[in-house]
Amino acid sequence: MRTVYVISTGGTIEKVYSEQSGTVQNLHKKVDRYFRRLRLPDTRVRITQLMNKDSLEMTGADRERVLKAVRKVIPGRAPIVITHGTDTMVETGLLLKKKLPRLHAPIVLTGAMTPLGFEGSDGLQNLTESLLATRLLPPGVYVAVHGQVFPIDQVRKDRKRARFVWTRGQA
Amino acid sequence: MRTVYVISTGGTIEKVYSEQSGTVQNLHKKVDRYFRRLRLPDTRVRITQLMNKDSLEMTGADRERVLKAVRKVIPGRAPIVITHGTDTMVETGLLLKKKLPRLHAPIVLTGAMTPLGFEGSDGLQNLTESLLATRLLPPGVYVAVHGQVFPIDQVRKDRKRARFVWTRGQA
Amino acid sequence: MRTVYVISTGGTIEKVYSEQSGTVQNLHKKVDRYFRRLRLPDTRVRITQLMNKDSLEMTGADRERVLKAVRKVIPGRAPIVITHGTDTMVETGLLLKKKLPRLHAPIVLTGAMTPLGFEGSDGLQNLTESLLATRLLPPGVYVAVHGQVFPIDQVRKDRKRARFVWTRGQA
Amino acid sequence: MRTVYVISTGGTIEKVYSEQSGTVQNLHKKVDRYFRRLRLPDTRVRITQLMNKDSLEMTGADRERVLKAVRKVIPGRAPIVITHGTDTMVETGLLLKKKLPRLHAPIVLTGAMTPLGFEGSDGLQNLTESLLATRLLPPGVYVAVHGQVFPIDQVRKDRKRARFVWTRGQA
Repeated sequence: MRTVYVISTGGTIEKVYSEQSGTVQNLHKKVDRYFRRLRLPDTRVRITQLMNKDSLEMTGADRERVLKAVRKVIPGRAPIVITHGTDTMVETGLLLKKKLPRLHAPIVLTGAMTPLGFEGSDGLQNLTESLLATRLLPPGVYVAVHGQVFPIDQVRKDRKRARFVWTRGQA
Repeated sequence: MRTVYVISTGGTIEKVYSEQSGTVQNLHKKVDRYFRRLRLPDTRVRITQLMNKDSLEMTGADRERVLKAVRKVIPGRAPIVITHGTDTMVETGLLLKKKLPRLHAPIVLTGAMTPLGFEGSDGLQNLTESLLATRLLPPGVYVAVHGQVFPIDQVRKDRKRARFVWTRGQA
Repeated sequence: MRTVYVISTGGTIEKVYSEQSGTVQNLHKKVDRYFRRLRLPDTRVRITQLMNKDSLEMTGADRERVLKAVRKVIPGRAPIVITHGTDTMVETGLLLKKKLPRLHAPIVLTGAMTPLGFEGSDGLQNLTESLLATRLLPPGVYVAVHGQVFPIDQVRKDRKRARFVWTRGQA
Repeated sequence: MRTVYVISTGGTIEKVYSEQSGTVQNLHKKVDRYFRRLRLPDTRVRITQLMNKDSLEMTGADRERVLKAVRKVIPGRAPIVITHGTDTMVETGLLLKKKLPRLHAPIVLTGAMTPLGFEGSDGLQNLTESLLATRLLPPGVYVAVHGQVFPIDQVRKDRKRARFVWTRGQA
């Protein structure tokens, strides 16, 4: 059995619809339920629910908490998936890359444009991809979303088109 | 083949998640796609997309449009389902009751607390129930939601509990 | 709170896919999980898993067991839903009608053409309809399937078209 | 835009439930509908529906047809996903490996233990994984299923446990 650590931080992927307010919010954890739907006969997924925030509201201190949570599991030399709001996912990833120069396994950030469990959601696809990416990628920090995998220093979110793109002209 | 007329007016049941704004809105029609999932071998469902509004934003003029749309199909003597935001569903229903004293078939209002296609949505259940209710109820104006059927002048929304209740003490 | 008794007997509605054999079988109970997806704020659904059989394999003794289970809950004067294979649903219903002449609440038989949880299943629709039917129908024995409600002595299955039809010429 | 060729051959992943017979069969194509649910902004998926067979019924001639279909798209130097019944997936893959010694892109075989669209299906997970695998793997022939990726000459199906395992003792 291999282990993959998951650190969930919130973001759209984890939002729920609140019937009282009629809005989508980061109220309850959700990612764990969806990971359990995947068949992973040789993988143990260990999930830490670190925080549940819209990534536009994440502060420097929040990012430090993510870094700290990553440091805590790094000695296991197992890959790490971080579920994160897409708006500042790259910022958090760049901090990890800067502060963690010698990785032994990949760290993959992922998230969603539409919450898990909502019609047309890309969330479960991205969870599935990020887990498989941890298997095939060399050590480093990456974003895995929509069938694409980007090294963290070569990616940005294209908000208008609701997707990630290379920072330079690659297709 | 029997006919049931559906008049869709919006409300939560028809909301979609907008990836650009991160909010749920009445942007596209949706109810028709879900009616098509139901097996109704002896029933023809004829859907009119009248408007797509949050019912808190419906004006007196909007309610007049609903009344007009109902009047238009009434000569067919077929039952009518109206999908509607839950917040002012009763208000619209009371107008219909007042203005349409001699009905030959039931008019059933329904809606949802969580949009169709969202995890945990009550929307498809309510569409299913409202259609069956048109089959079994005598002429009149009703609300059918969550396995309950109320004459329009005996129901109110209990917003806190996200359900409808009798205006007087009935269970 | 009102009560509805559910007696599940198997049939297609409750079949599961067996990965070992590649066939669909009546292996585990399933109906209870789907009833729990419905919002029924004023109704308590009490489920008895009586047997789990393809209805073509139900014997006279099995039908007697259904009758006995119905008799057991009848003193509660609450409605009863029986989930049942569609092929001999009418046969079981006719036995109940014959043996239980003085009902105080409706008994509604339902089932599905495609198992619950399979793409395109009619199962949840039929569960929803049967529950609402128990609310609106007078005492008697009925089949409620696909938006239709039939008194038990006026219905037969049209196997080729995978639906129920009136025994005489009604639409 | 990159291209991925998909060649669908049937197998459990593509089975549908037949209401007339009460069995699951390879009757209609299905894989294309599920690929369309994935968000792949930089990938064009070109699907060839080659055949629709239970892989236990595939003959040598069928495998030759698969080989021929692969040869036809190989000049495009794009990756290839083959959806296939799990029982003889490895056999087909070994033929491809033997007959196609100099690949420029990966060929990934995948399938499912439970049909797409059935409760608990692993089909969409496997489609998602196989597509991402084509992005990250070097040229060669592989099986990608359940978060695992195997070179074709190191894998076998463990039928009892409904999964794939390494032919030698690797975890």
